[in-house]
Amino acid sequence: MKTKFWLLAGAAIAIAFAPGCKPKGAQSALSGDAASKVYVAPGQHDEFYNIVSGGFNGQMSVVGLPSGRVFKILPVFSVHPENGWGFSEESKPMLNTAHGFVPWDDLHHIAISTTNAEHDARWAFGNANNTPRIARVDLTSFKTVEILEIPNSAGNHSSPFITENTEYVVAGTRFSVPTGDNRDVPIDTYKENFRGTISFISVDKDHGDMDIAFQLEAPPFNFDLARAGKKKSHGWFFFSTYNTEMAHTLLEVNASQKDKDFIMAVNWKKAEEYIKAGKGKKVKAKYAHNKWNEDTHMATSVIKEEVLSLDPRELKDIIYFIPCPKSPHGTDTDPSGEYIIGSGKLAAIIPVFSFTKMLAAIENEDFEGSVDGMPVLRYESVLHGEVEKPGLGPLHTEFDGKGNAYTSMFVSSEVVKWNIETLQVLDRVPTYYSVGHLMIPGGPTGKPHGKYMVAYNKITKDRYLPTGPELAHSAQLYDISGDKMQLLLDFPTIGEPHYAEAFPASLIKDKQVKFYPLENNNHPRALKGINDARVERDGNKVHIYMTTIRSNFRPDNIEGIRVGDEVYFHVTNLEQDWDVPHGFAIKGANTAELLVMPGETATLKWVPDRVGVFPFYCTDFCSALHQEMQGYLRVSPAGSSTAIKYSTGEAE
Amino acid sequence: MKTKFWLLAGAAIAIAFAPGCKPKGAQSALSGDAASKVYVAPGQHDEFYNIVSGGFNGQMSVVGLPSGRVFKILPVFSVHPENGWGFSEESKPMLNTAHGFVPWDDLHHIAISTTNAEHDARWAFGNANNTPRIARVDLTSFKTVEILEIPNSAGNHSSPFITENTEYVVAGTRFSVPTGDNRDVPIDTYKENFRGTISFISVDKDHGDMDIAFQLEAPPFNFDLARAGKKKSHGWFFFSTYNTEMAHTLLEVNASQKDKDFIMAVNWKKAEEYIKAGKGKKVKAKYAHNKWNEDTHMATSVIKEEVLSLDPRELKDIIYFIPCPKSPHGTDTDPSGEYIIGSGKLAAIIPVFSFTKMLAAIENEDFEGSVDGMPVLRYESVLHGEVEKPGLGPLHTEFDGKGNAYTSMFVSSEVVKWNIETLQVLDRVPTYYSVGHLMIPGGPTGKPHGKYMVAYNKITKDRYLPTGPELAHSAQLYDISGDKMQLLLDFPTIGEPHYAEAFPASLIKDKQVKFYPLENNNHPRALKGINDARVERDGNKVHIYMTTIRSNFRPDNIEGIRVGDEVYFHVTNLEQDWDVPHGFAIKGANTAELLVMPGETATLKWVPDRVGVFPFYCTDFCSALHQEMQGYLRVSPAGSSTAIKYSTGEAE
Repeated sequence: MKTKFWLLAGAAIAIAFAPGCKPKGAQSALSGDAASKVYVAPGQHDEFYNIVSGGFNGQMSVVGLPSGRVFKILPVFSVHPENGWGFSEESKPMLNTAHGFVPWDDLHHIAISTTNAEHDARWAFGNANNTPRIARVDLTSFKTVEILEIPNSAGNHSSPFITENTEYVVAGTRFSVPTGDNRDVPIDTYKENFRGTISFISVDKDHGDMDIAFQLEAPPFNFDLARAGKKKSHGWFFFSTYNTEMAHTLLEVNASQKDKDFIMAVNWKKAEEYIKAGKGKKVKAKYAHNKWNEDTHMATSVIKEEVLSLDPRELKDIIYFIPCPKSPHGTDTDPSGEYIIGSGKLAAIIPVFSFTKMLAAIENEDFEGSVDGMPVLRYESVLHGEVEKPGLGPLHTEFDGKGNAYTSMFVSSEVVKWNIETLQVLDRVPTYYSVGHLMIPGGPTGKPHGKYMVAYNKITKDRYLPTGPELAHSAQLYDISGDKMQLLLDFPTIGEPHYAEAFPASLIKDKQVKFYPLENNNHPRALKGINDARVERDGNKVHIYMTTIRSNFRPDNIEGIRVGDEVYFHVTNLEQDWDVPHGFAIKGANTAELLVMPGETATLKWVPDRVGVFPFYCTDFCSALHQEMQGYLRVSPAGSSTAIKYSTGEAE
Repeated sequence: MKTKFWLLAGAAIAIAFAPGCKPKGAQSALSGDAASKVYVAPGQHDEFYNIVSGGFNGQMSVVGLPSGRVFKILPVFSVHPENGWGFSEESKPMLNTAHGFVPWDDLHHIAISTTNAEHDARWAFGNANNTPRIARVDLTSFKTVEILEIPNSAGNHSSPFITENTEYVVAGTRFSVPTGDNRDVPIDTYKENFRGTISFISVDKDHGDMDIAFQLEAPPFNFDLARAGKKKSHGWFFFSTYNTEMAHTLLEVNASQKDKDFIMAVNWKKAEEYIKAGKGKKVKAKYAHNKWNEDTHMATSVIKEEVLSLDPRELKDIIYFIPCPKSPHGTDTDPSGEYIIGSGKLAAIIPVFSFTKMLAAIENEDFEGSVDGMPVLRYESVLHGEVEKPGLGPLHTEFDGKGNAYTSMFVSSEVVKWNIETLQVLDRVPTYYSVGHLMIPGGPTGKPHGKYMVAYNKITKDRYLPTGPELAHSAQLYDISGDKMQLLLDFPTIGEPHYAEAFPASLIKDKQVKFYPLENNNHPRALKGINDARVERDGNKVHIYMTTIRSNFRPDNIEGIRVGDEVYFHVTNLEQDWDVPHGFAIKGANTAELLVMPGETATLKWVPDRVGVFPFYCTDFCSALHQEMQGYLRVSPAGSSTAIKYSTGEAE
């Protein structure tokens, strides 16, 4: 079967490579047209912010559309030596988990906050797949300000998707794990001992703070992706499942046995009613909740001890299953909220379900079976219709707001445009190669901006100049404003892009934090001016309160440090202007640099292990005299009586 | 003085922002022209590889020109969670130093290998500023294959620059440090106790292996940048110096006192003669020498114990000083090797020195003083001439091979083109904002490709959509093929770009390693096929020999692991095709993922701290059944008798 897939993919590629039949002049005119459509002239701005998951780099990247330029790699779950994320004392707690400090994760999906099913772009949410967590990024500072661990979970893949007013972010298990007290169980007791969970994480509507509102117990299926209902279907959530075979080995074969798996429909308003009625059960579970404070410029990590659990096997009417061919990957809801599209990655058709029909089937108890007592709705009764011959390996669907859907086809390497009502295929374009997710600005919301579509491709090969065995992943930008899709641009991405969202730049570009006002800096070690700079010994701890301003450190000559001391450099950047960070590094330290934003305080810990004089310097070019921004710290032997002494600029 | 600079910079910007006087149609035609010049149509390749330093991210990035697209972030001195660099057992030794494991550094300058003063592009060298090291990257695999620590050094900034046949890479101290046995000295004994060094690192002409051939002792000046002589000046090396005042505090003021600092000319052929004559002195010095082996797919780190030192105070005719106004930053030699340009960052002119005149001045003992007994040549005697009114804050100069030089002006934010012979300013273009380095493909070699020039700017502000307080650094691409420079494109960069080099793609694009042949995989834990997969206990160490191939792990069910075991996953990727890496991660691990290239073996160490069943999975989308590529590992309590058991795909 695998071989067949690859041959098919190869065939699609071969066709795409066949020379075009247009005369050369026409091609070059078309190319000029594409060039001008993606060109953002110096001094001009892109039209859309595109927030792209970094996959196995654990970060997000911020890309401009239509140019494809990367404006920022935004550290989320992985340490980022570039700016000290995960190395500074202030940021270390952000990467704390119930497993201790975890320096990496795999971020797959982006959710941009919405109000009334339209992007408000206050926050971007991202998921950690490996050690399950949900992160929240503030889109006025482009900083990760909260990370919440998800207990009773593994392979946190059908995450983070949001309800239409960002009431909830959900997180579902791709991998089920043993639950309860006895976790040392044979793997082949999977069906008895392993369980999935779906977490509903509440989001404070003013400040964004997250909390696990409740967890739904679920069968040990693999939950793959999810979408909330919207407008008429607000109150419901839809999760795709695979491995309903409940295999635990060689899933490549054993989880592809059934003709249909399920889309799991969750009535979360019903769940809320049960909770109000006191039907939830508090369950012990350890998980970290980490928050960044923009006033103190530091993070805290709290280990929580319990979650509220609901068992839909007992609490009826929360969960219904919709049969869906075959190992559905994406499940997507159209802008009206009426249609639910399931993309069975091994299927030859795309089923489109009707929310109205689903409600009727529930009302009529039009069931074809049950899972653990939860009803399975009759496929035909819920079906709006099937898209015939869409291509091979449908994965994800987005919308243009003009009645059309766009589905990525992994195996046949193409994007297919079809009409949501008529289910007629309208257009198809090749992708190079093997598209995974695709994205239209506003595409998952009630208000898509149907101008561009981006395909995020899984195979790169010869699309760019080669760089050895390891290649950048690849994106392709298409113009979808006309009847036919037009390929405009190939551009490489950072890490492995899975899902991405985009929104008009106008939503946030005038709300950006440019620097942190010093008067609001409530870091306990912050300084307000150069005269406060000092060095204080407290046993074997030495606190160096240091300022940076173009272009000197205060103090820049420090003596009286001893081998084995714990030295803390608390660096306050006194600048109060945009784009004037200062960096700090000291020779031989077993840590990264600090990159300190204007008005911020950050701390580097250093334990000198030898006698000597150690230079430190500003690592971010800050002025014509940046090269002069340096200092020296003298380390004397342990037990030395060299007195603490510090200064800047005294007589030479 | 500082205020004045900034006002001047502001004035230049204001002029540049003034509305142009061209009619609108003309501007848009120009913009269309620029668009088509930078557009690389889907399926087409860029013309040049541009290897760009990442500055405070410690990495290099690989960029295509003219598109400005980033093809790779190439880990060098900083850990890279994305592919396990610094986390896998195999790569950890690469970041070892005499100070232990150092997870970050600040990479400023690139040197692409040359033969006969032309790019051969076999290797890219980069420097670590903070904990002094030189790295070598293999440009057939785009992998860091060697890192050599530099002892007796700090602030390794005038590094790595190379001789015309890559005989040597040099590394000079920006920060002097105390030398000898007594290093616990007061900082204000700087002039007596601190010394600089210039290291000459030999490069094996066949394999590239580096070694410190010798170190020259030097006065405690700050060595900033350097260039080798070439062609007629082959055998000489030129280093810019600042802080010849030898200040140790508030250098912003105290190192800007003198009207002239120096360019230090080093006759390294003479140094070789002294070494042959046995005049070198072996000095104790601890430093790490780390090498990556492409056959075993692992690194080794050796701590070396001594270097060969030459003292030019005693060994005459190695060093001469050329006076140069004022705090020279860049020093560059033109394609003919005759002219040496010093860029005094606080100077109002650019001096151009003549190599022929320098030799004559040495011959005639035309000296105006000495430093520690080493002659200072008379400025006027060595001068070819001065470029008058070039702009403010000259930093760096590159060449187009047509007799012109291009100098970046930090303070007046512009690039100035001038004729090397006549010293006449021919053209100037604004940069947005505050340009640091600039780069022309082949620009520092004997054979520049004078088609494009890139300005790497230090201030970004409003050039792109804003991303909070922290902004990407900025590059600008200019067309320099005509008489007048034309700005084509703004593009953001990764980290802080300092120096960069570029060369024609044709030099290396057909020499790329696409995968590693399995039969050459000499990793001691490598597997050659799925049947070799196994799990072996050795005391509290457990070695899991695992294979990956689309789309399963063998084994994928593992039992018999105990809490507190040291578990080593030795993962061999059996694929033998381009662009089919597999990733590996396990829940809760306090490390990063592995990203394993086809034919490679890599090892992740994990110490389970609790009982349970832990999922692992492939982190890099590899096929239509990638989501099914997962497994489970059972951890039993310490002391448990659960037997080692492993399998893939047995009966469900």
